Amino acid sequence: MNFGMIKNLCGQVIRFEAIFMALSLIVSFIYGEFASAVVFSVIIALMLILSFILTYKKPSNRSFYAKEGLVTVSLSWVIIAFFGAMPFYFSGAIPSIVDSLFESISGFTTTGASILSQVETLDKSILFWRSFTHWIGGMGVLMFVMAILPLSGADPLHLMRAESPGPTTEKLVPKARQTAMILYKIYIGLSLLEMVLLLFGGMPLYDSIVHTFGTAGTGGFSIKNASIGAYNSVYIDVVVTVFMVLFGINFSAFFLLLAKKFKSFLAHEELRVYVSIVLISMAAIAINITGTVYESFGESIRYASFQVASIMTTTGYGTANFDQWPTFSKFLLLSLMFIGACAGSTGGGIKVSRFIIMIKTLKRKALNIVHPQAVKLIKLDNIPVHEDVIRGTGVFMVVFFGITAVSTLLISFNGFDMKTTASAVVACINNIGPGLGMVSPVGNYSDFSIFSKIILFINMLIGRLEVYPILLLLSPTIWQKRKF
Amino acid sequence: MNFGMIKNLCGQVIRFEAIFMALSLIVSFIYGEFASAVVFSVIIALMLILSFILTYKKPSNRSFYAKEGLVTVSLSWVIIAFFGAMPFYFSGAIPSIVDSLFESISGFTTTGASILSQVETLDKSILFWRSFTHWIGGMGVLMFVMAILPLSGADPLHLMRAESPGPTTEKLVPKARQTAMILYKIYIGLSLLEMVLLLFGGMPLYDSIVHTFGTAGTGGFSIKNASIGAYNSVYIDVVVTVFMVLFGINFSAFFLLLAKKFKSFLAHEELRVYVSIVLISMAAIAINITGTVYESFGESIRYASFQVASIMTTTGYGTANFDQWPTFSKFLLLSLMFIGACAGSTGGGIKVSRFIIMIKTLKRKALNIVHPQAVKLIKLDNIPVHEDVIRGTGVFMVVFFGITAVSTLLISFNGFDMKTTASAVVACINNIGPGLGMVSPVGNYSDFSIFSKIILFINMLIGRLEVYPILLLLSPTIWQKRKF
Repeated sequence: MNFGMIKNLCGQVIRFEAIFMALSLIVSFIYGEFASAVVFSVIIALMLILSFILTYKKPSNRSFYAKEGLVTVSLSWVIIAFFGAMPFYFSGAIPSIVDSLFESISGFTTTGASILSQVETLDKSILFWRSFTHWIGGMGVLMFVMAILPLSGADPLHLMRAESPGPTTEKLVPKARQTAMILYKIYIGLSLLEMVLLLFGGMPLYDSIVHTFGTAGTGGFSIKNASIGAYNSVYIDVVVTVFMVLFGINFSAFFLLLAKKFKSFLAHEELRVYVSIVLISMAAIAINITGTVYESFGESIRYASFQVASIMTTTGYGTANFDQWPTFSKFLLLSLMFIGACAGSTGGGIKVSRFIIMIKTLKRKALNIVHPQAVKLIKLDNIPVHEDVIRGTGVFMVVFFGITAVSTLLISFNGFDMKTTASAVVACINNIGPGLGMVSPVGNYSDFSIFSKIILFINMLIGRLEVYPILLLLSPTIWQKRKF
Repeated sequence: MNFGMIKNLCGQVIRFEAIFMALSLIVSFIYGEFASAVVFSVIIALMLILSFILTYKKPSNRSFYAKEGLVTVSLSWVIIAFFGAMPFYFSGAIPSIVDSLFESISGFTTTGASILSQVETLDKSILFWRSFTHWIGGMGVLMFVMAILPLSGADPLHLMRAESPGPTTEKLVPKARQTAMILYKIYIGLSLLEMVLLLFGGMPLYDSIVHTFGTAGTGGFSIKNASIGAYNSVYIDVVVTVFMVLFGINFSAFFLLLAKKFKSFLAHEELRVYVSIVLISMAAIAINITGTVYESFGESIRYASFQVASIMTTTGYGTANFDQWPTFSKFLLLSLMFIGACAGSTGGGIKVSRFIIMIKTLKRKALNIVHPQAVKLIKLDNIPVHEDVIRGTGVFMVVFFGITAVSTLLISFNGFDMKTTASAVVACINNIGPGLGMVSPVGNYSDFSIFSKIILFINMLIGRLEVYPILLLLSPTIWQKRKF
């Protein structure tokens, strides 16, 4: 294990987090929140000093493989969440350390599960930082470091693979650094577009920025207790719905658009399946809630669309309390929680492409029973999927369900009802935020025990980094001296 | 597809079912239930005639491969369930055709989910047949046919693989027919032993036989409304608990015992994991319910042990209503439902060995990240597991969870609460019987719509035959003319 490189990269990550946090410092000056400004300044200074210490000595050994990639990613995520929690705790916004960590991890992992019951009374700069963590975590901090810094010698693909979601991660262009840059350019472009459209709808600038952070990162923290529902505007609902769906799309599809490969864009398999699931679910739920929850179909389609987009992309914004919808709608939303967004998007969940691979594998298996001599490659977008990836996808999904089950058991010691217990875990591991019962869109996570909160934030990290980096960090194997 | 062989085997299966049903006819004479006797006689006559027609012409082509094995098994299971439902319907015990089919499929698949709210008023011969379906379905009808009839030419291993549960099915002795015989001998031997022990406990002969059927097949139909709880005897609880656990064990482990390979028996990996899960769960639930549900730890361990054995082996007998236990106990029982019993036992669920394979695959994956050059075979009982089996296990589990999710969505149209809806599907696909809410140990499945009942009995068949035979039967591919 090349600890020199890992230490250096963690140092870089801390420096960039300090730069990001400086934006919140500026916001605190704008709104005259001087207590918060002091807190931000001290934390930023601390981070810069630590970063200097960690990166002062350049690592001599530049070898960097998959294990280093995974360890760097998981370690740096724990570090950014740790420093990210500091403003909440030291500003007094969140008086408990565990709660501050919960909020910070929930932010960076773009979960959006909150322990706060009243957000509107908090400092604007603190809320800005809270939502900004979504935007940073959505595309990934290391991806940002990669886009800015040349990582000489080391192959940054291992970092990219460990941080960006999906069964396979390939570079869009031959160089990983260029790929990271393109991804960030698309990310920034789409974010600016949403912000402008929200401004057109009459949303104040500050609100537009903060809610764009939450949409872009598919996070879901709001500055309103009633989330997007507080604006009660059809226009804003539509804009946010559309952008939630957009940020759940595989960014390589947007790259096809930029490269003017419209045919390939329209043929993009994961995109087609994703859009189909979104549209069918919107229609099914709208039909299910018409007449029972809402009078008109128009109203039903408005609220169904928003909630489906919010859940499937794992954002977690709300304009309605789906916990009061019929059983079918609730189960459909629960299923969408697990399916999640596209690979290579900012969304969470298991990812659409993994389900596509599994269904194709099942079809192949059926074919093999009927025609044992047939040899068939499984393809995604006409590119054969490696057998290792297929096996890995199965293991990933089983482990994902397994962790969900074990976590539910651990949380159940809290003694809350089954619906709250199970949906809290599902909403955290899939990086959604709101669940059912006590953690429904009108509830929050504050009543859980410290033990439960720790389990839940480990789940958020496992969900965001897709199991392996965190499992590896928690496993003794990685810290042992080489045995063979 | 060799339809001649499939037709012939289905004919044999119907003949054996007629012979089994003759036992119920005898019971109807013993108890003087003449109306039922007439019903049984007519159905038996009908089956013998049909069997004669189907087996009259010997198939000239004896080729028999995996696809024929799967189709034969799924078709013959549908056929036996169909004829098995007739006594319920024509005796008037169950006035609806769908309900009769539900009860019959629930019986043969050893699920034990019932649509009856009052069983004690029914004819003894009808209840005998109801429980006997468990015993027949537990080890498998085709396995019985194989044990009795020499299937010249055809390789019966394909039948065995399709009917007996688990990721891999191997012969205990070189010949499949001998293997089937040995398995049935162990099955009959253990059943007799339980019956005698129940008699010692003061249970009437008829009750002992019927409850032995339910235990041996890990079914769960009882002739008492309060299930085994009706006897209120610690001795009977202990005997049934022990035998439920025994029938959940891989029968190849018993074969090791018979062959006096005690060391291999004690080292049997799936057995060790299975026993560990059973014991740990019993202890955990006993601790969880002491003080809240029961006063003393002794009482808690008695009821916890019974319910854990009943759920983990997917039997479904009850001595307590676990729906009123704390959330942790309920979630632990729900997890055990999915884990299920050992492969090669009469129990259902996903099977312990599949989880062992998945955990070993995960460990190998972690090792491969740290040491990419390491090549490691995954072994079960020191025998390498084929990579196809590993990939197949992942796909199986994902498909199993997928079918559970889709079925839950379909059942949710019924509009019942989430707990009832989800647990009904989980209890049926894992062949357990009782779930939570309306289908808790004190409830039943009668209130579901016809559509829901059909979905649920398809789930029972999918669970018992482990997905592929039923999926293949429902898929158009198998019925198409050879395309390439």
